[in-house]
Amino acid sequence: MLMVQMLADAYDCDDAIADAEILIGSGRAAVEAVGATVIGETTTRYVPHGLTIGLFLAESHLVLTTWPEHRLLLIDVLLCNPEMSPDAVVDVLAARLCPRGRVVRHRVLRRIAADPA
Amino acid sequence: MLMVQMLADAYDCDDAIADAEILIGSGRAAVEAVGATVIGETTTRYVPHGLTIGLFLAESHLVLTTWPEHRLLLIDVLLCNPEMSPDAVVDVLAARLCPRGRVVRHRVLRRIAADPA
Repeated sequence: MLMVQMLADAYDCDDAIADAEILIGSGRAAVEAVGATVIGETTTRYVPHGLTIGLFLAESHLVLTTWPEHRLLLIDVLLCNPEMSPDAVVDVLAARLCPRGRVVRHRVLRRIAADPA
Repeated sequence: MLMVQMLADAYDCDDAIADAEILIGSGRAAVEAVGATVIGETTTRYVPHGLTIGLFLAESHLVLTTWPEHRLLLIDVLLCNPEMSPDAVVDVLAARLCPRGRVVRHRVLRRIAADPA
């Protein structure tokens, strides 16, 4: 099986990325939009600003890292269900948090089993 | 500034990847080896097996996801300090957990600021 992990860099985000509750709510909405189930949540706060939100899923995880001083949101999503689209997760987050910004997406293919050497 | 996020897929790992305490200890040793500081920790357990360990760092994060039934360890490390090597973090983890296995490394470059459009 092949999994796609998506790392997306969202620029020119709204002030909302400095608010942990809004980030968590947006993250939950994004993963629930593709049918994923949240089973754990963490928030790490940086001084003077910046947040890392981890949403742990039945299907793996979503990590959001923010740099409010650069209006930057880093999105990292791995979904161990090929019917769930990481692009759709990124789309929901970008629409809520960075509607006027630009998103650069990186797709990384990860294999469950090694290729024959 | 440019950051390198490393996603590494470690195959043919030891049984230790099914043990949360060993994973956490190995993760802490790996990030401390490059001088990073752990400021938060989470463990998510899957049924019937599988773990996701999140170590949140002053310099961002390390996430370890295991699929013991495939002897697979997924390593995801982001270090917001260019003097700290994500390769060194992966080396420590591979030596401790997958010494007889193979590691496939993916490097993703993430920019703090968008390029001029």
